[in-house]
Amino acid sequence: MHAEILSIGSELTSGRNLDTNSQWLSRRLAELGVATGWHTTVADDFAANLDCFQVACRRAKVVIATGGLGPTQDDLTREVLAKLAGVELVEDAASLTVIAEMFRRRNRTMPERNRVQALVPAGAEVLPNDRGTAPGIWMRHGDAWIAALPGVPTEMYAMFELQVKPRLQALGLAQGCLVQRKINTFGLGESHVEEKLFDLTRRDHVPEVGITASDAVISLRILARGLTEAEARTLTEPVERIIRERLGEVVYGVEDEELQDAVAALLVKHRRTVAVAEGVTGGALADALVGVPGASAWFRGGVIAYDDGLKRELLGVPADLLAAEGAVSAAVAEAMAVGCRTRLGVDLALATVGVAGPGPLTDDRPAGLVWVALAHADGTASATFHWVGNRAEVRRRTAKMALNLLRVHLLRRTA
Amino acid sequence: MHAEILSIGSELTSGRNLDTNSQWLSRRLAELGVATGWHTTVADDFAANLDCFQVACRRAKVVIATGGLGPTQDDLTREVLAKLAGVELVEDAASLTVIAEMFRRRNRTMPERNRVQALVPAGAEVLPNDRGTAPGIWMRHGDAWIAALPGVPTEMYAMFELQVKPRLQALGLAQGCLVQRKINTFGLGESHVEEKLFDLTRRDHVPEVGITASDAVISLRILARGLTEAEARTLTEPVERIIRERLGEVVYGVEDEELQDAVAALLVKHRRTVAVAEGVTGGALADALVGVPGASAWFRGGVIAYDDGLKRELLGVPADLLAAEGAVSAAVAEAMAVGCRTRLGVDLALATVGVAGPGPLTDDRPAGLVWVALAHADGTASATFHWVGNRAEVRRRTAKMALNLLRVHLLRRTA
Repeated sequence: MHAEILSIGSELTSGRNLDTNSQWLSRRLAELGVATGWHTTVADDFAANLDCFQVACRRAKVVIATGGLGPTQDDLTREVLAKLAGVELVEDAASLTVIAEMFRRRNRTMPERNRVQALVPAGAEVLPNDRGTAPGIWMRHGDAWIAALPGVPTEMYAMFELQVKPRLQALGLAQGCLVQRKINTFGLGESHVEEKLFDLTRRDHVPEVGITASDAVISLRILARGLTEAEARTLTEPVERIIRERLGEVVYGVEDEELQDAVAALLVKHRRTVAVAEGVTGGALADALVGVPGASAWFRGGVIAYDDGLKRELLGVPADLLAAEGAVSAAVAEAMAVGCRTRLGVDLALATVGVAGPGPLTDDRPAGLVWVALAHADGTASATFHWVGNRAEVRRRTAKMALNLLRVHLLRRTA
Repeated sequence: MHAEILSIGSELTSGRNLDTNSQWLSRRLAELGVATGWHTTVADDFAANLDCFQVACRRAKVVIATGGLGPTQDDLTREVLAKLAGVELVEDAASLTVIAEMFRRRNRTMPERNRVQALVPAGAEVLPNDRGTAPGIWMRHGDAWIAALPGVPTEMYAMFELQVKPRLQALGLAQGCLVQRKINTFGLGESHVEEKLFDLTRRDHVPEVGITASDAVISLRILARGLTEAEARTLTEPVERIIRERLGEVVYGVEDEELQDAVAALLVKHRRTVAVAEGVTGGALADALVGVPGASAWFRGGVIAYDDGLKRELLGVPADLLAAEGAVSAAVAEAMAVGCRTRLGVDLALATVGVAGPGPLTDDRPAGLVWVALAHADGTASATFHWVGNRAEVRRRTAKMALNLLRVHLLRRTA
């Protein structure tokens, strides 16, 4: 373990703000082959800051600090680092010019207090900041290297990439590259996915393959390390091929892709239009589809038939079918999809019915029980599931289930 | 500064997971009058853990650790604390019974490795965990008190409240009470709200009043400290009254209440039903309404008329009106609301039209331009806005705007 990340600010220790810089830095360092052993967050207090820098320099080879470089009296990092090094603060002429210029470009007079931002411990190196008024500091203490960066994420990200990364590489601390590939699936439970990939998800498998579940989407993450990105990809690519071979049509996308993105691509490719008839999802299915930019090319609209009367009036579901089967049934879901397809004049129509909860609809219609249906040119298809989850989860997951029914239909009919 | 929070786990130092336990604990401690000076996160490494506990006990009076209490070999907290205290681990019979019982109730055999979860450093106190198999540990080291809790948030939250809080209070470390009151508004911009409350939002005002904006909802947070909750509330209540007097109907709720909750309460109170005709929001408005448990009592359904043809066919918007005014217009929004109200047989109907983006619809219909409309027994109302935001933001905020139009209507007609 080589690195410690030190986040400075009472807004973090008080719990007012959540520290996300440490996670970002840990990930970037891991990608560069540097393992982080510690995150420390400390309030704006001189003695506590000095102590934290001393502790960090004792145990880590690289200490990356964020925050405490602003112009106010709370901002102590410059003084703490001078004290740590046992030197005076000196004004860096180049930094002062940059800061003054930054104010001039905004047609503002530089407040006198911003002058302190040009101070650095004597002998330390200045890390230029082209997005803000706080330059960073690079210095050695004992066996450790210290990089002090501003706490503002956008400034910190850029300075890490432009200033810190090359220095870590030059020191031989940052070596290699970590590549992550995420593969998203829908339609198989987590344990079924794991069963099919048991040899890959073992803890000692190289590259590492992890499974995560989020709202019924099961994702695989392949993590591989290499000296270069290309080398790491030669490790992830064969594993991705195996996963795709074993899981087949269950795989719907990679990285941040959602089911509606996969559906949208297939609808565009096959020039099909779609509409929705929503019961239990109550707008969530249409909302997901309309969220895709360019949806107007293939999404026509829909009917939210939350009330059973509307299932008859707007979608033409026969009253006797509703009475015989109940609204939460395969037959009614399919009748809604067929009615929607005809009345809205689309190629494909999706329908959802179910019990969102809390509480059951009737004794034989418990909370979480849902049906989704699809109407297409040659007939209908439907699927059912009994979700364990709260009202919001049941509704979101049922919308995904409907999207997946459509996705698989489009895949198969054109396979 | 009294407290240090120590989060244990390589999944945190590697950046794979984000630590939110530290923020939660800091907030709860602050509410109890305990200031947190440090957060430390450490990887699953024995020596590094021992060092972190030693450093924390040197500088803090209370050390709250989370994680490392599971049944696997990575879970080191029990052993680290025994080493720190210079004692052996001993099996706590009561804990073992509880763990075994937990497996028995789930009809599972207790794996042998779970037995280690009943071990505690000799002389330490066991903190019962009624939500999981990992009991916590309470012990003194040097001048500091240590509470070791599981890392699973729901287990940790409950154990903090039931086990740690009373112990801190008994020690006289937790004194006083911080009360927060959140007041939610919609309909005025952040700077307008601030203008009306300028005297209250000054930095030196007691109690402190902060403003935050989230998706066009502007919230005020009143923060007050007292020896008891009742005493703190005597500070927040007069400020809440002033805010309500000055902002009037712009205030729609408190704490986590959303606009749809306020709308639902008014619809129930006045026994009115509602339906929606959605253009630009494309399901998001219905989704918000249906998300309220019990929505079936007052929500009937809706039409998603994303396509202009459907605005005519399903809602009866005249073709010449569409041609003359364009779909993104007050007249079309009102016609959609009127058509929806009549055809779906409800008391009140909402409609939305607009340009979600990316990119404009036409030269005079830029991305972000929207109209919302309401049809009621005595006529119609409408409102327009030009949002600056991405596709998802424009759609979410427009749904809120429509909900607010309905809310204000229901408030005024019954005032």
